Amino acid sequence: MRQKPSRPAPAKGRVGVVVVGAGALSTTLIAGILAVRRGLGKPIGALTQLGVVPGPPERPGPVPVGQAVPLTALPDLAFGVWDILPDSVYRSAVKAQVLERELLEELRPELDVIRPWRGIFDPRFVHRIEAAHCRPRQGHLDSVAGIDKDIKSFRETAGIDRMVLVNAASTEVYQSVEDVHRDLGMFERALAADDERISPAMLYAYAALKQRIPVVNCTPSHAVNVPALLQLSEEMKVPVTGRDLKTGQTLLKTILAPGLKARGLGIAGWYSTNILGNRDGEVLDDPACLKSKEESKLAALKAILEPELYPDLYGGLVHRVRIDYYPPRRDNKEAWDNIDIFGWLGYPMQIKINFLCRDSILAAPLALDLILLIDLAARAGLRGAQDWLSLYFKNPTVRNGRQVHDLFVQRQLWEDGVRRIAGWTANGRGV
Amino acid sequence: MRQKPSRPAPAKGRVGVVVVGAGALSTTLIAGILAVRRGLGKPIGALTQLGVVPGPPERPGPVPVGQAVPLTALPDLAFGVWDILPDSVYRSAVKAQVLERELLEELRPELDVIRPWRGIFDPRFVHRIEAAHCRPRQGHLDSVAGIDKDIKSFRETAGIDRMVLVNAASTEVYQSVEDVHRDLGMFERALAADDERISPAMLYAYAALKQRIPVVNCTPSHAVNVPALLQLSEEMKVPVTGRDLKTGQTLLKTILAPGLKARGLGIAGWYSTNILGNRDGEVLDDPACLKSKEESKLAALKAILEPELYPDLYGGLVHRVRIDYYPPRRDNKEAWDNIDIFGWLGYPMQIKINFLCRDSILAAPLALDLILLIDLAARAGLRGAQDWLSLYFKNPTVRNGRQVHDLFVQRQLWEDGVRRIAGWTANGRGV
Amino acid sequence: MRQKPSRPAPAKGRVGVVVVGAGALSTTLIAGILAVRRGLGKPIGALTQLGVVPGPPERPGPVPVGQAVPLTALPDLAFGVWDILPDSVYRSAVKAQVLERELLEELRPELDVIRPWRGIFDPRFVHRIEAAHCRPRQGHLDSVAGIDKDIKSFRETAGIDRMVLVNAASTEVYQSVEDVHRDLGMFERALAADDERISPAMLYAYAALKQRIPVVNCTPSHAVNVPALLQLSEEMKVPVTGRDLKTGQTLLKTILAPGLKARGLGIAGWYSTNILGNRDGEVLDDPACLKSKEESKLAALKAILEPELYPDLYGGLVHRVRIDYYPPRRDNKEAWDNIDIFGWLGYPMQIKINFLCRDSILAAPLALDLILLIDLAARAGLRGAQDWLSLYFKNPTVRNGRQVHDLFVQRQLWEDGVRRIAGWTANGRGV
Amino acid sequence: MRQKPSRPAPAKGRVGVVVVGAGALSTTLIAGILAVRRGLGKPIGALTQLGVVPGPPERPGPVPVGQAVPLTALPDLAFGVWDILPDSVYRSAVKAQVLERELLEELRPELDVIRPWRGIFDPRFVHRIEAAHCRPRQGHLDSVAGIDKDIKSFRETAGIDRMVLVNAASTEVYQSVEDVHRDLGMFERALAADDERISPAMLYAYAALKQRIPVVNCTPSHAVNVPALLQLSEEMKVPVTGRDLKTGQTLLKTILAPGLKARGLGIAGWYSTNILGNRDGEVLDDPACLKSKEESKLAALKAILEPELYPDLYGGLVHRVRIDYYPPRRDNKEAWDNIDIFGWLGYPMQIKINFLCRDSILAAPLALDLILLIDLAARAGLRGAQDWLSLYFKNPTVRNGRQVHDLFVQRQLWEDGVRRIAGWTANGRGV
Repeated sequence: MRQKPSRPAPAKGRVGVVVVGAGALSTTLIAGILAVRRGLGKPIGALTQLGVVPGPPERPGPVPVGQAVPLTALPDLAFGVWDILPDSVYRSAVKAQVLERELLEELRPELDVIRPWRGIFDPRFVHRIEAAHCRPRQGHLDSVAGIDKDIKSFRETAGIDRMVLVNAASTEVYQSVEDVHRDLGMFERALAADDERISPAMLYAYAALKQRIPVVNCTPSHAVNVPALLQLSEEMKVPVTGRDLKTGQTLLKTILAPGLKARGLGIAGWYSTNILGNRDGEVLDDPACLKSKEESKLAALKAILEPELYPDLYGGLVHRVRIDYYPPRRDNKEAWDNIDIFGWLGYPMQIKINFLCRDSILAAPLALDLILLIDLAARAGLRGAQDWLSLYFKNPTVRNGRQVHDLFVQRQLWEDGVRRIAGWTANGRGV
Repeated sequence: MRQKPSRPAPAKGRVGVVVVGAGALSTTLIAGILAVRRGLGKPIGALTQLGVVPGPPERPGPVPVGQAVPLTALPDLAFGVWDILPDSVYRSAVKAQVLERELLEELRPELDVIRPWRGIFDPRFVHRIEAAHCRPRQGHLDSVAGIDKDIKSFRETAGIDRMVLVNAASTEVYQSVEDVHRDLGMFERALAADDERISPAMLYAYAALKQRIPVVNCTPSHAVNVPALLQLSEEMKVPVTGRDLKTGQTLLKTILAPGLKARGLGIAGWYSTNILGNRDGEVLDDPACLKSKEESKLAALKAILEPELYPDLYGGLVHRVRIDYYPPRRDNKEAWDNIDIFGWLGYPMQIKINFLCRDSILAAPLALDLILLIDLAARAGLRGAQDWLSLYFKNPTVRNGRQVHDLFVQRQLWEDGVRRIAGWTANGRGV
Repeated sequence: MRQKPSRPAPAKGRVGVVVVGAGALSTTLIAGILAVRRGLGKPIGALTQLGVVPGPPERPGPVPVGQAVPLTALPDLAFGVWDILPDSVYRSAVKAQVLERELLEELRPELDVIRPWRGIFDPRFVHRIEAAHCRPRQGHLDSVAGIDKDIKSFRETAGIDRMVLVNAASTEVYQSVEDVHRDLGMFERALAADDERISPAMLYAYAALKQRIPVVNCTPSHAVNVPALLQLSEEMKVPVTGRDLKTGQTLLKTILAPGLKARGLGIAGWYSTNILGNRDGEVLDDPACLKSKEESKLAALKAILEPELYPDLYGGLVHRVRIDYYPPRRDNKEAWDNIDIFGWLGYPMQIKINFLCRDSILAAPLALDLILLIDLAARAGLRGAQDWLSLYFKNPTVRNGRQVHDLFVQRQLWEDGVRRIAGWTANGRGV
Repeated sequence: MRQKPSRPAPAKGRVGVVVVGAGALSTTLIAGILAVRRGLGKPIGALTQLGVVPGPPERPGPVPVGQAVPLTALPDLAFGVWDILPDSVYRSAVKAQVLERELLEELRPELDVIRPWRGIFDPRFVHRIEAAHCRPRQGHLDSVAGIDKDIKSFRETAGIDRMVLVNAASTEVYQSVEDVHRDLGMFERALAADDERISPAMLYAYAALKQRIPVVNCTPSHAVNVPALLQLSEEMKVPVTGRDLKTGQTLLKTILAPGLKARGLGIAGWYSTNILGNRDGEVLDDPACLKSKEESKLAALKAILEPELYPDLYGGLVHRVRIDYYPPRRDNKEAWDNIDIFGWLGYPMQIKINFLCRDSILAAPLALDLILLIDLAARAGLRGAQDWLSLYFKNPTVRNGRQVHDLFVQRQLWEDGVRRIAGWTANGRGV
């Protein structure tokens, strides 16, 4: 059943954004927000900052999102991070090699004071050896208590009014959803028993929900996106969202496939290869991870193309996805797609797409949008998985089990969501 | 003011499709329809044949287009053509080198009997020397009378109940719209005075409208798409549509641009090059033609991106379009696009698209859709330019002067159009 | 030690070409030669037919290869094939979908009479189930005897004067070179013992050599290209060559890499992906095969680039190769390469290559050249591995153990080889 | 007649490099050499720095170029520049946006002291308005005298022993070679008469030659590369070289075409498009320039492919070249090539190449090589056009009128040239 939002009051006070992982995404996000605040750059790609929505029925012209709904202003955001390395956000940003050195030097004083709290490290989930700055492993409940403590101390020392937790940690090793993840009771018992199927990302999410902090999961890890924790988010009346930010190849796929379908062109095959030089690439080089990724990508294409409705067009689609770790690409990402389409009488044609993109540059504005919109959703009284935020994810967590992948449908859901919170539509879909 | 369609009765009787020009498109269309009738191929790309629309409010599931509205069945189509060469449709199809020889041999008996009527040839508009089969040039009114005679004789001998005229002739030399094209009175005076600004494509369109035959213009030529003839279509209560079928590069452009915009990504530059080996390529090799094409393509991008609303994202867009005649490509067409996009803080990324397409294979199903839908529109009492058919055109002719280019908005207009004719929506947009 | 060829007499009599495997390559080769004989096509890609070499020192201008050395004329070639399916060469050619149906119909009478002899089938080496036409498995020596019988009967019934055996069978499962392959004595003992490390391709090669028939191995299988059989070729004084015809991506790689090196440009990474829809693709989809392919390709790059001589330019090269089975491509093959180069002060640049090629169309002229040139070599008294034929192979078998991969050096060796046989160079390299 | 070099003595003393034009190339060259001297980068792409040649016949292993012949060491180079803007080399380098700001800051003191002498400006040849730093236009002879004075003063103040003049100015407007450029006598009379067909680039070259200073022309302008000035270079016994550095698309073309030819593959069409954002792109946007560029590129392909020798393979080649000014690319350059090749029986295949390159990064090491090698040639007593330096140019100036374009033949000529100067080959070609 759809929730009915209440129109929130203007945003007041500071929002504490606590981020798990001080890697390329987090540092690009934080440094970028500081740069925008100081007029050193523009928040390109963030719909909350530069987007518009149609106005109320009586004045349907375009209205900037920030005028339609009361968003938190950028100067009101404060940041805290956890990491398993002791580097400051300044130092991590330099290492990440995403933003130009010149800009980072200008922001150095502000970035250097953000020092990470000790992270939770579990070698079963992240195969990185040098965890030089993690909290001692004394069981799950102890970890949760540690997170609580960090959050509380941040809240007090930084004068925080509301919070959002963002998971931007390294992708965890692939893990299937099992019984302990399906039911809150079982989850909590597993927590107490130090069950090895509970990953660090889940511990952070659990800790946040218990304190009624909304959770945004940017990564492919499960984190908040398992039934047990979604149940908790409903019970605690906290909105959550995720997972796996839609950047790069999948973004283009969910643009192009709806377009070909809108014109009734057939697709015989879709071959996609990705080369990545960063940590993500390393993790995905593992065949098990890849398999799951490939299946999830295939599912997205099927959800868009509806082969059951169009057997002549999409019934025989062969879909192959490759993800290769290729260090020369660094944080940049490159995709090459070959799409075998067919037209009149089945005659074949081909589309090739080469996308030279930058992971964190594409991801950071999405993370900013999600922080501001999940905070807005919380203030509007919404809870649980937020379907209208599907636009941002490769693998959107939804309430009714039916994922939407078509970018244009996602965008419409998003727009309807914003307008419902604005109180401008009685019958909007999807919030 | 929007017209209100009446739900048409089931289609009965034969529809005579009279086509100007027996080139690659026409022969691929006709041979393809014959092949589909005989189960030798599928009408891929034709939404009327394989598409669905949402059903009526009470049963909103997908309904095949042919069940939603009463379309003419393929076996009820009969074909006549004009050309300035005497080759039969079989022979022209062989020369066009689009369809495989094997298929054409199977269809040979049916294709060989379609012999062209003598075409109107005006060397000012088409720089082709060997017009071995044209009617003697004895003035515009004589040409119109000749067209009338061909149509009437076809109607009688073939037992035709309704007709559609399709312009698929070679693109005419670029021509600006002048006073004689703007007003019906002036147009008719110019007709009588053999004014050289009236092209063959306009003569065919005029003759058709005077006989209340709907007109579909597949080419970039003006044909029916000048104010004077649109006025005539309103007066004669005949629906018309055009111009320049949207295939190839522009199709992808109007898919991709809305997608990038939906996510707020900036675009710094868009470089497009096309290589064509057919007649179209030869015509467009002319700098004057190209200039007009380039401007029209730029207009399409601007109409989609709305730089006035998003100055930070699209205000500085540099758009370059190249069209080159390259004989090795024959009827195939190839496009290469480089798109310079930017994200967070303005950091640049690139998308390259290489589209190996086939002009007539993409165009034929659009022509089939347009024939069936303009006939449907006529039976539904619609007249003048049909905005809801914008989906099919690079340069859609519309009633209110405001072209829509975004493929997804066009598709919605199309769907609304079909559903309004079906009587399923009281408040649909765009018919 | 280099062999000294004697100038052969003009070619007289018929050459029997016995081909293992009647797949895409063999049928394209045989049908193509018949087509060329009848003037229905040109033997593009065959240097023996269209190439030139510099003339003798006193007249150094270009001389057609066929005038420089006495090659067998195409009408003097006769064909026999083995296969594990009973289809005639006509039927196999139709199934292979490489050549146009129209051409095959014209050649049908000549192709249809070539019926395969029963092939040797060993499920350990070829994972194909439907071996409907193989000789009963009764041990290696029985298989060899069977091959002998087929060859002799062909020789007699077809009036054959000389022979060449060509291996064009499906690639066998990857196999490491072991002791039984290293020494002729051990090999023959293993033969008698039905050792499972001896593959069908080796049996054909062994049988041919024992009858002093030169062997050409077009495939990546070992066949004649193991030390034991090379030893036999020396002893029997028969020339042999192979393995893995250089078509597609590796061809371009061995063109481009020498070019970049000639100008001192650095290479940081080379990412290659291949999509194949034919049997080769299926076989290579196996990770074990791929690994070996990847290593062999890396070796070729290293042999060309000499990183030990140019550590600043090629010392850090990351090379990744992907081969993916993608059925929509059929016999066509497609490669996409991304090459990360660097120039002045290490600044990066990129080259992307997309090669849409056809395996058998590229391979057939190489097979023709090899048949004619190995026959020439035999008549010139050359024996063992023919280094000067390296031009044709991804993995050239050489006498001295030092493979040459640079296409331009290979071409020079080839030219020197032809000219030495012509008697035009006292000091040529490489024969 | 070929010249016989004498082996030069070890290089002693300082070489003054006087550069016309302080744009992207010059500043990248000068800053790069300074960076290399200080160990801040490597001179990638410069064969004089990182290349090898085969040693003398008795020890044929690879020998570094700098050990084979006595080159001037980098610390012995001193730089002077002319420009029509007053910016220092530091400031020009910042504006050029080629090298990273960080590096330029480190080199700032050394770059900032290189202040340009006033340049010669002639609005007929360079359509740039803001020539804020040019010498007053008082006739050609006065300009030559001014250049002389700048050179002499530099020689004295900087303690220069030898000199090289490098033309790296903006490309001049296209100009056909006329009688005044064909004969030295006529040229000198035209000089006295202020003939408008004599361009600034020619004035610099003339002045240099009269002082026996070798000239390197990096640009497509004529400069020293007209018969009259080549005659002067012979008379003054000074070596010269040029024109139009071979970077980017032509580099790849002259690598790939020889490779395809070496394997006898046919080429039906070659379509090349270039997008450039710098001054070069602006100049080439002019149709007249482009036409001449297109013809010169076609000539290069023909010179490599020899269609007269291979009519079946290259007789029907369609070659199209596009060069488009596209500001978003800045100093980067991008090429897209489509090559339609054909194999066995004429079946078509395609190669597409996308080259993302950087003009000045590719050009700077060539300029360094040319400075050191022309100085070497002068010391070896060579004069006039240096054919063995063809490797570096799109349009190499040669003595015998027959240009070589095949990169691999050029490379061999280069190697032979170096080895002849080293005294290692009695019968080398091409010096």
